[in-house]
Amino acid sequence: MACGSWESWESWLKITAVMVLLSPPACCSNILVVPVDGSHWLNMRVLLEELHARGHNISVLRSSSSRYIAEEPSLYHCFTMSLNGKMGITEDQEMLSQFLLDSLEILRGGLTLTAFVRNTQIIRKMLWETHHKQREFIRLLFEDSALMEKLQGAGFALVLTDPFFPAGVMLAHHLQLPLVCHTRWLSFGDSHYLIAPSPTSYVPVVGSRYTANMSFLQRLANAMHYITTVKLGSAMIHPSYDELCHRFLGPGTDIETLTQHADLWLMKVDFVFEFPRPTVPNIIYIGGIQCRPARPLPPDLEEFARGSGEHGVVFMSLGSLVTQIPAELAETIAEAFAQLPQRVIWKYQGDRPANLGNNTLLVRWAPQNDILGDPRTRAFISHGGTNGIYEAIYHGVPVLGLPLIFDQYDNLVRLDSRGAALTLDVSRLDSRQLLEGLREVLSQPSYREAMARLSALHRDQPQTPLQRAAFWVEFVLRHGGAAHLRPAFFGLPWYAYYSLDVALCLGMVVASLTGLALLAIRRLYRALRRVKEKQS
Amino acid sequence: MACGSWESWESWLKITAVMVLLSPPACCSNILVVPVDGSHWLNMRVLLEELHARGHNISVLRSSSSRYIAEEPSLYHCFTMSLNGKMGITEDQEMLSQFLLDSLEILRGGLTLTAFVRNTQIIRKMLWETHHKQREFIRLLFEDSALMEKLQGAGFALVLTDPFFPAGVMLAHHLQLPLVCHTRWLSFGDSHYLIAPSPTSYVPVVGSRYTANMSFLQRLANAMHYITTVKLGSAMIHPSYDELCHRFLGPGTDIETLTQHADLWLMKVDFVFEFPRPTVPNIIYIGGIQCRPARPLPPDLEEFARGSGEHGVVFMSLGSLVTQIPAELAETIAEAFAQLPQRVIWKYQGDRPANLGNNTLLVRWAPQNDILGDPRTRAFISHGGTNGIYEAIYHGVPVLGLPLIFDQYDNLVRLDSRGAALTLDVSRLDSRQLLEGLREVLSQPSYREAMARLSALHRDQPQTPLQRAAFWVEFVLRHGGAAHLRPAFFGLPWYAYYSLDVALCLGMVVASLTGLALLAIRRLYRALRRVKEKQS
Repeated sequence: MACGSWESWESWLKITAVMVLLSPPACCSNILVVPVDGSHWLNMRVLLEELHARGHNISVLRSSSSRYIAEEPSLYHCFTMSLNGKMGITEDQEMLSQFLLDSLEILRGGLTLTAFVRNTQIIRKMLWETHHKQREFIRLLFEDSALMEKLQGAGFALVLTDPFFPAGVMLAHHLQLPLVCHTRWLSFGDSHYLIAPSPTSYVPVVGSRYTANMSFLQRLANAMHYITTVKLGSAMIHPSYDELCHRFLGPGTDIETLTQHADLWLMKVDFVFEFPRPTVPNIIYIGGIQCRPARPLPPDLEEFARGSGEHGVVFMSLGSLVTQIPAELAETIAEAFAQLPQRVIWKYQGDRPANLGNNTLLVRWAPQNDILGDPRTRAFISHGGTNGIYEAIYHGVPVLGLPLIFDQYDNLVRLDSRGAALTLDVSRLDSRQLLEGLREVLSQPSYREAMARLSALHRDQPQTPLQRAAFWVEFVLRHGGAAHLRPAFFGLPWYAYYSLDVALCLGMVVASLTGLALLAIRRLYRALRRVKEKQS
Repeated sequence: MACGSWESWESWLKITAVMVLLSPPACCSNILVVPVDGSHWLNMRVLLEELHARGHNISVLRSSSSRYIAEEPSLYHCFTMSLNGKMGITEDQEMLSQFLLDSLEILRGGLTLTAFVRNTQIIRKMLWETHHKQREFIRLLFEDSALMEKLQGAGFALVLTDPFFPAGVMLAHHLQLPLVCHTRWLSFGDSHYLIAPSPTSYVPVVGSRYTANMSFLQRLANAMHYITTVKLGSAMIHPSYDELCHRFLGPGTDIETLTQHADLWLMKVDFVFEFPRPTVPNIIYIGGIQCRPARPLPPDLEEFARGSGEHGVVFMSLGSLVTQIPAELAETIAEAFAQLPQRVIWKYQGDRPANLGNNTLLVRWAPQNDILGDPRTRAFISHGGTNGIYEAIYHGVPVLGLPLIFDQYDNLVRLDSRGAALTLDVSRLDSRQLLEGLREVLSQPSYREAMARLSALHRDQPQTPLQRAAFWVEFVLRHGGAAHLRPAFFGLPWYAYYSLDVALCLGMVVASLTGLALLAIRRLYRALRRVKEKQS
C-alpha cells in the first residue's frame, strides 16, 4: 500500500497509466448489439471493431433485409430475423428517393407555411411507416420463443443499442441487462431532449436552422419548433409502443421511461461541431469516433489524384442514404465541375451525366476518410451528414454544403457559423452558383483556416473518441452498470420536474397572504371611517 | 499522412498516446494564480505542483495575512499584498470559533425557524465582513500601479483562480487573459448555479440536507432554500462589487457576467459523491484531485498504529478550518474513544481533555491521506469536509460524521444515502451515542462494502483527476481559451433565458384567438336568436 517518496509515486502512477493503456481488459464479455442500419451502423461498427479487438464477443441482432449490416463471422455472431419487406428509413431506398424529390420540390417553393406543413406530413408518414415496421420486428422477436431462449442463455453482460428504434431498449429491460445507447437522434430529434435540460432560448431545435444566438422572433420560432417536433413527435411515437411494452414487458412500462433509464449514452457529438448545451454526467461525447489517420488511396484513385498537380482534388459525396438525385441536378453539378482546374472525385451511383468533364471521376463507392485525409484534397462537397462532417473536421478540409433532407441543413449551419463551410440551396442550384461557391471555398484562406482551428481543437483530447467509447462500455461491464451517473429525475411527473406544483403552491400562499392583508387593511379603513363618522 | 495498414495504425495510435502521456508539454507558460486560503488552497496547491512539474512558471497573488499560502520559491513566485487585519473566512480564526459556538447552540435547539433565521444572519454577517475585506484587497490591488505594471509585463498566458472571491476574475478581465476557475463553492452556494441548469425538483440545494429524491414538501422547501440562499445570496453579494468593476474595468461590467465568462471550470466534484445533476461542456470534474496512494506513516504514528494489533486504528479529524471545539464536547469524545479496543489518532489543536484514554493519540497535524490509506485504518471520524471525504472514498474507509457548519451536513447526507457513512448530531452528542455509532460503523460490513464500491467507481477513470485538471489547463494554454465549450446563454436577460417573453407572447396569441373565437360564436348565437325571434 505504501510506496517510497513522492517522486517514486509519480513514476509509479505513470507506469500504471501506461500499463492500463496497453494491457488487455481484465475480462472478456458477451455483448448484445441491436443496431440501426445505414450511416448509423457505419460508425457503430467502428466501435464493435474496437470492442472485438479488446477481446469481447459481439452478437448482432439484425433483420434479413438489412442493407449494410452484413454477416461478418470474423467480427460478430449474427441473430438474423426474417422480415418480409424492407425495414426502416435506411433500408427502403424507394421511399427515400421519393422523399428527396418531394423535399426538393417543396424547397423550390421557398420556406412557406405550406411547404413546412407538407414536409412535416411526409416526414410523419415516413416515421409512421418505419415505426410500424419496427413494431412488427419487435412482435416477431418477442414471439420467437426459440430465439428469446437463445438470447437469455447466451450470458450477455450488456446491451449496446441505437435507441432510434426501441427493440434494443426493450430487450435490455427484458433480459435485465445494463444498457448503453449509441446515438445522436431519436425519431423526434436530438437524443439530448430525453435526458438533459434543453432551454429553447439558446439550444436551437434541429430543423429550425438557427444558431445558438437567436433574436426574439427566432426564439419564438424555436419554441414552436420544439413543441411541434420534439413534444408532439414524442407524444405521437412513444405511445405507439405501449401495447407491445405492456404485452411483453409487463404493465406500467413505456418506451420513454425505459430509454431514459439507460446506464450510459455514447453521444455522437463533439462541441467543435455542436453548439455547447447543457448535458448530464452519463452522456459520454464520442463525436468523430470513426475518424482516423488516412490510409493510402486505392491505385486508381491514387493515380487520378496524382494527375491533379498543383491544383489538388475536390471530393464530392452526398452520403450513403441518398443514391439518386434528379438527372438535371446531376448535370448542373457536372457542368460546374468541368470548369474547375481541380480534379474531382464524385461518389455517385446514378446515371453518368452527359456533360461530365474529363477532370471528374465518378465512383460508386469511395474511401471517404482516406480521400479527406489526403493532403491533395482541397475541398469537400457534402450533403452535411455528420459522418462526413466529422471526417472533414478531423482532416481540416473546408466544406461546400449541398444539404438535402433531415438534419443536413442544421449540420451545415454549425459549420457555417464557425466560418468553415459555405452552404448553397440545392433546390435552386445552377452551375454558375455552384462554381462561384466552389471557387470561394477553394480560394479564400479563411475557410481552410477555420477548419484547421476546429481540427486542432477536435484532435486535442486526452483519449480518442473511440478509446473513450470503449473505455466507458468496459466501465459499465466492470461495474454492472453506471447508475451513479444518472440524474434522479425519473418518476417525476412533468409538472413536478418543472416545479409547477411548487410554484402553484407558493403562488397560492403569496396570494392568500396578500388577500388577507388587503382584507385587514379594508377592515381597518372602514373601522377608522366609522370612528370618524361618529366623531363628526 | 498515410500510414500502412489498419493494424499498424492502431499501434501508431497507442505509441502516440503513450508519448503524449510521458512527454513534456510543447511549451512552458507563465500562469497567474489567485487562490483562496484554507482547505480551498490545499488542493489547489496539488494542481500547482503538477503544473510546476510540467514545466510551467507559477506566480501566486497572496495577502500578507495568509494562513496557509506560504512563500514557496521552489514551487512558485509570490506577489504579496500587505493587508491590515485578517482576510476572508478562513484566515480569521476568532470569527470562525465564535461562529461554530453559535451554530452548535442554535442546533441544540433543533431546526426551528428561529434557529434557521439566526444561523442565516450569522452566515450573512460573516460573508459580508469577508467580502468587505475582499473589496479592500481588490481596491489596494488595482490602485497599486507598480504591482499592476509588473503583472501586465510578466507575460502571463492564463489566470487560474478560485472564484469564491472575485479578485482573480477581475484580474483576468483586466489583463485580457483566458480564465480557469478551480472551484466548488461560490458565496451563495454550489458554483454550478452560475453556469448550469439546476432544477430544484431533483437538485437539492446545499443547506437543505435533502437527497436528490424529494417528496413534494421537500421540493417546496428546496425551492425556498434556492430562493433564500442562491438567489438572494447572489443578489446581495454580486452588486456589492459593481462600484469596483465600473471603476477599474469600465462601465457595463459586473462580477456575475465576468465569472460566467470563464473559459473552463475545474469543478471539485465527482459523481460517486455528488448527486448526478445537469452540467455544461466547459465543466471538468476533478473531485478527489488531491488523493494519491498512501506514503509510509511518520515513525511516531507508525509505531502507534503498529501497537493496535488486530483491532486497527480509528482516525479523527475535524478539518483545517475548525481548530477549537468546546471543552465539554472534547471530553465527550475522549470518553467514548477510551472505551474502544481500537487505537485512535485524533487531530486536535485544543487543550488535552482530562479523561483522554491511553489508546488515543492527540496530534496537532496529521498526514490525513496517508493515515486513511493505511490498511490498519478501520474508520474515519470526520466533520464532513470534502477533502477528507474524497480521501476516505479513494481509500475505501467508512465514515462516522460529526458535521459542524457550512456544507458539512449535506456532504455527509451524500455518503449516508449510499450507505457509506453514519452521521450523528454534534449538538446533542453524548459519549454513549458516539460509542454506539462508532461500533456500528466498525462492525457492520455494509459500511465498508459501500465505501469499497464507491472507491472502485471513483478510481476507474481514464485519467486521474489531477492529470485531467492539468490536461485541461494546458488545453486552454495551447488554444488561448476554450470558448467553443461555453454555452451561449450570456447576455440573455433572465426572462429570455427562461423563455418567459416567448411564453407570454404565445399565451397572448392563444388568448387573442380564443377571445376572437368566443366573440364570433356570441355574434353568431345572437344573429341566430334574432332570426328565430323574427320568425316567431
